[in-house]
Amino acid sequence: MNAVETIYPPDRVTLREAGLRDGLQLAKNWPDTAAKSAWIEAEYAAGIRHFEVGSFLPEAKFPQFADVRQVIAATAALPGAHGVALAMNVRGAEAAIASGVPEIACVVSATEAHSTRNARRTMAEALATVREIGALRDAAAHRPLVSVGIAMAFGCSIAGEVAPGAVLRLVEMIAEAGADVIALADTVGFAGPDQVSRLTAASLSLVGDIPLGIHLHDTRGLGLVNASAAIDAGARIVDASIGGLGGCPFAPRATGNIVMEDLAFLCQTKGLETGIDIERLIAVREIVAAAMPGETLHGAMARAGLPTAELAGA
Amino acid sequence: MNAVETIYPPDRVTLREAGLRDGLQLAKNWPDTAAKSAWIEAEYAAGIRHFEVGSFLPEAKFPQFADVRQVIAATAALPGAHGVALAMNVRGAEAAIASGVPEIACVVSATEAHSTRNARRTMAEALATVREIGALRDAAAHRPLVSVGIAMAFGCSIAGEVAPGAVLRLVEMIAEAGADVIALADTVGFAGPDQVSRLTAASLSLVGDIPLGIHLHDTRGLGLVNASAAIDAGARIVDASIGGLGGCPFAPRATGNIVMEDLAFLCQTKGLETGIDIERLIAVREIVAAAMPGETLHGAMARAGLPTAELAGA
Repeated sequence: MNAVETIYPPDRVTLREAGLRDGLQLAKNWPDTAAKSAWIEAEYAAGIRHFEVGSFLPEAKFPQFADVRQVIAATAALPGAHGVALAMNVRGAEAAIASGVPEIACVVSATEAHSTRNARRTMAEALATVREIGALRDAAAHRPLVSVGIAMAFGCSIAGEVAPGAVLRLVEMIAEAGADVIALADTVGFAGPDQVSRLTAASLSLVGDIPLGIHLHDTRGLGLVNASAAIDAGARIVDASIGGLGGCPFAPRATGNIVMEDLAFLCQTKGLETGIDIERLIAVREIVAAAMPGETLHGAMARAGLPTAELAGA
Repeated sequence: MNAVETIYPPDRVTLREAGLRDGLQLAKNWPDTAAKSAWIEAEYAAGIRHFEVGSFLPEAKFPQFADVRQVIAATAALPGAHGVALAMNVRGAEAAIASGVPEIACVVSATEAHSTRNARRTMAEALATVREIGALRDAAAHRPLVSVGIAMAFGCSIAGEVAPGAVLRLVEMIAEAGADVIALADTVGFAGPDQVSRLTAASLSLVGDIPLGIHLHDTRGLGLVNASAAIDAGARIVDASIGGLGGCPFAPRATGNIVMEDLAFLCQTKGLETGIDIERLIAVREIVAAAMPGETLHGAMARAGLPTAELAGA
């Protein structure tokens, strides 16, 4: 069994906390390092093992990630916990490798318009960067995973519709570029479940053993619908965040990621073994709420709780 | 083609506004008759044709439905609009028939515990009532439809788990009792999509040509996930309400019905022809908000709007 299969076992669905990266990207208040560590430790105690912990971006523009190295270290201190850090270019990837983070996440846009606006590069340049980061990975002693997310895979708020075939060609090229993990991202919440199901299944048919992830935003209320469709179609990794934290600069009125607590309940109804204690997961919201005053936390499970029955266990 | 196939065409999914009945059941403020009519007319203009308009319950206990006859008349005045009124017993059904409403909705609980608490009768007595209401229907000049909802079909907040086989036996008995429409209700939001898919498909295999409806509450965030699963499995009627209005006395912390505006977007992503103008549907919220001050309106589409692209139509 190679490393990626140990970290993302093929026989289970991995729920990955994205709030410490995607949830802080646009936030005006963010947790300090101690609060980030407390958040991770509490969610780890609830059963989550995979955390996107921050970005290697210029600190002047993204001060919320200035402590990314400490957060990586805090995650690494928990047995079996797995940290992921975003790098948008080779310099960021070099810093990520030096930090020892076990997974580096990169982004390729599904449209030239978004690639240019979001990362000031063409899609071909983004793919070349993935290849360069792969080479850095191969030369690194601890050989981190390189995961590549396809932004705007289900439609683009700049360019409009995105042809599924173009996304599938991109999936192929990303696999050829050496990605260890590939993720489809509905960056602006355009997707519906049938589209997610088809693109997930078609991508899986191309990538073979490479784990496929799904990154969804609940912009139009279909986040969990799409998560359910992706899981049914074989996605192995689902991103979510406590309280649905997160937003997108290209979708200003958008709510954030799908809500981790509600996703965990969805998985429970499907009989999936996620190892998550939903009550303890709900309690993590208190840490996040205290560390991010003024931030709206979404989610239904926190309000309703697990199903219970007066006369019997439900 | 018989009447039920005209009203609920087999080749399309019908979205039914439940807010004027289920959404007002627990409300402290409710729209007056003029506001109810304005609500129905605006939602009709947005493309909705099916409305649950109220209940024939004792006016002293349910003053919000005291004007049910006028609301039925207001609905009947709109070409092609179809009104549904709830009746819990024979006396209510007689009043419903006298009103001329084209569909009478009854309820049978999936558990004896809920049947006793909610309607002070056994499940056998509830089935006997369905048969009696069917006889009243057969004797009525305008022959209204009789629809029967199975409350707590996916789990009961009093009795706990409900065996799918027991629900399917109930579906059979309700069909034998002469129901024109049968609906499965997740009264307290216990269901997950796999369960909904299985029970919908199995029910359809039993009921033949009888249209199957689904009534969901978004208590734990899975309302639209379950709606998607039900539609995929062949449900022909989906209840929802503007802004997700509604609650349940047996699920005190529950949010309401699934949000009509978001359900309409889900159907659009599936390529289903519902005849609904989502922008106009969202605008109906203003009427509801003005008529029900203090009531929380839920929903993502009202916040995010339809997908749009800067450079192209999305």
